[in-house]
Amino acid sequence: MAIIVYGFGMSGNCWKVSTILRLTGHAFTWIETDSNAGRTRTPEFLALNPNGKVPTVVLDDGTVLTESGAILLHFAEGSPWLPAPGLARTRVMEWLFFEQYSHEPYIAVARNIVTYLRRKDAEIERVRQCWERGAQALDVMERRLAAHPFLTDAGPTVADIALVAYTQAAEEGGFDLAKWPGVRAWAARMLVLPGITPLPRAA
Amino acid sequence: MAIIVYGFGMSGNCWKVSTILRLTGHAFTWIETDSNAGRTRTPEFLALNPNGKVPTVVLDDGTVLTESGAILLHFAEGSPWLPAPGLARTRVMEWLFFEQYSHEPYIAVARNIVTYLRRKDAEIERVRQCWERGAQALDVMERRLAAHPFLTDAGPTVADIALVAYTQAAEEGGFDLAKWPGVRAWAARMLVLPGITPLPRAA
Repeated sequence: MAIIVYGFGMSGNCWKVSTILRLTGHAFTWIETDSNAGRTRTPEFLALNPNGKVPTVVLDDGTVLTESGAILLHFAEGSPWLPAPGLARTRVMEWLFFEQYSHEPYIAVARNIVTYLRRKDAEIERVRQCWERGAQALDVMERRLAAHPFLTDAGPTVADIALVAYTQAAEEGGFDLAKWPGVRAWAARMLVLPGITPLPRAA
Repeated sequence: MAIIVYGFGMSGNCWKVSTILRLTGHAFTWIETDSNAGRTRTPEFLALNPNGKVPTVVLDDGTVLTESGAILLHFAEGSPWLPAPGLARTRVMEWLFFEQYSHEPYIAVARNIVTYLRRKDAEIERVRQCWERGAQALDVMERRLAAHPFLTDAGPTVADIALVAYTQAAEEGGFDLAKWPGVRAWAARMLVLPGITPLPRAA
């Protein structure tokens, strides 16, 4: 029995998981689970992950893994995608927490409301807040990426995978990456690395 | 020159940092930095941490560390507060990301609005959302803590430090922990461990 990934195809958080599994040579079965349609809040799914979120991974011994950042780290351990403990690893951790607290809640949420739920007009106040805070997150990334090829000095790591997950589709949330040229060049650099397949865009 | 912590005394995120430093025997100097008064958005502070947040740590060689979760992991590495890589460490990581994405944005934010900014009536819609989502986070914790002494099977770890940071003061945000008896008992258990000093409450 292979690894099972409960994931939603449009989700950058789920894309992180399929990407690290491919990069580290793990076979997996993907079970499409549409969180926008309530499929992560069913009693069956909540029994698997009480927090009701994708991605959720089931290993071949039945062990369940949750939280995209933790799953990235789990499979990257011992690979070139995660530096050894010490300052180099701490730099990766800073970006992983930055992504979940200061980036994803604005850039991913704007994209979902605007392009997938199609509720931009109905939720314009929330979208405006996402634009403001998301721009701040992109500013922080630009300060680093204007002068460096990757987010940390360790070459491409799970930090870059985590941040490019939603940055690559930021325009679907109304962000124009031309304003952040270092970020845009970095995203392009990441998405042509061997083994990385870009997130599909809305039809 | 010792470690410098830029922190805000009422902040659970900053409490995590002083707690792990004490538990791992690191001396430090605390520089009080009131984010509610804009002290993390000054040009001087943004030069230190472009994301404009506390805690921010400066090591004795001038290295700057950000993100409370990353700082916890940095100082816990090699100590009993962080298990070795593998499933035990992954379980810690799951809770650290859960805290920053599904717990802190509701439980810490409700507390700040209600007790520190004193804007509950003015922001009642946001507070109500915090109550709903914060209760969901406490439900997820209760499922584990009703039957286990700590969040992971590795004994008390940085996961427990991260989650107790704001849970211990949840009542300042309007949560009644009597509804989550496993969580309440766990918080009491954490706060009497040697070297742990509870977060001060509002005067």
